[in-house]
Amino acid sequence: MSDRRGRLVALEGIDGCGKSTQARLLASRLDAVATFEPGATRLGAGLRALLLEPGRGAVSDRAEALLMAADRAQHVTEVIRPALDAGRWVVTDRYAASTLAYQGYGRGLDLTELDALVGWATGGLRPDLTVLLDLPADVAAARRAAAGADRQEADRMEAEGAGFLGRVAEGFRTLAAAGGEAWLVVDATAPVAEVAGTIGRAADRLARDGPP
Amino acid sequence: MSDRRGRLVALEGIDGCGKSTQARLLASRLDAVATFEPGATRLGAGLRALLLEPGRGAVSDRAEALLMAADRAQHVTEVIRPALDAGRWVVTDRYAASTLAYQGYGRGLDLTELDALVGWATGGLRPDLTVLLDLPADVAAARRAAAGADRQEADRMEAEGAGFLGRVAEGFRTLAAAGGEAWLVVDATAPVAEVAGTIGRAADRLARDGPP
Repeated sequence: MSDRRGRLVALEGIDGCGKSTQARLLASRLDAVATFEPGATRLGAGLRALLLEPGRGAVSDRAEALLMAADRAQHVTEVIRPALDAGRWVVTDRYAASTLAYQGYGRGLDLTELDALVGWATGGLRPDLTVLLDLPADVAAARRAAAGADRQEADRMEAEGAGFLGRVAEGFRTLAAAGGEAWLVVDATAPVAEVAGTIGRAADRLARDGPP
Repeated sequence: MSDRRGRLVALEGIDGCGKSTQARLLASRLDAVATFEPGATRLGAGLRALLLEPGRGAVSDRAEALLMAADRAQHVTEVIRPALDAGRWVVTDRYAASTLAYQGYGRGLDLTELDALVGWATGGLRPDLTVLLDLPADVAAARRAAAGADRQEADRMEAEGAGFLGRVAEGFRTLAAAGGEAWLVVDATAPVAEVAGTIGRAADRLARDGPP
């Protein structure tokens, strides 16, 4: 990997953990391309609407995983890869680990098969650093409820309930524990500025020393 | 496989080969569930619109293959598998071979990887009989042009041009040649009633003798 190539940093965690805020802060600090999944491309926006809108009815577990993979394939081709090739850093709010956490640990699909699917969809592009904003599922639920007045409706994932989100949160922790130095786990109950500082210092180390 | 289980028959070929007409005739003869890909489910209809509408812009090859696989996963779960489990026969206008022909032979994606993707999406459900309505790409183009006055617009696949459709047509022939007795190749330039008779007799053999 050339030293001039940009780096890919993924922020992961359950809804309410502060990913979106932290992704914006980190991208600003790094002058990076800030992006997100699902829905960052025109195709992806259409897929996001299909997948998350309540009332669309049942979507099979495998279809859901395949749609997330399709969104990611388009995202890599249209946004992430061109930015990296141009030497830019990219900060994405969700990436591959979300599929393993939600569709694997959450829905119960086989993790090895999902990993192969994600690898094919991305052409093997893995983050240089994945940051888990770790938050207990019940705290996340309380945060979302407090913000509820501003939300039109819970999306399909959030509507799955506490058991599902608890498995997803624990799945993220398991992935982080297995991921070694390519992962950073941050306590998402800490103040925003403190979380931002921790993530920023990890990004600075990555810029200085390269990927682990 | 229980003798009471329904059978799955897939009709394949390039647009203009007469698949849809033959699928209707065969389903009527067999009192089978008549269905199609992409777009037979509510989710699939949304995906079909996303994928085929001209003007939506570039869709990456892998994203296209993943969307077709998602449509098929939902189709199997919601339509095909329940019908088979209820002892019904199912006749589908397109199935797995279309992904190998269009995204493999047409777009150039790796066939082994696509086959694994399709196998995962369908949970390993393969047709008991696949019928290729074989038509030279230039004859198909002429048929579509003759029908053009009734068509609002060519879809994205058809707009790919003669080189692409030639590769797809040849890909279908290669798949059929490798597929042995699970495939039937029919000359789609023959009269409709003759084609229907040939396919119907193959279905009768399948009903009598079981899958090869």
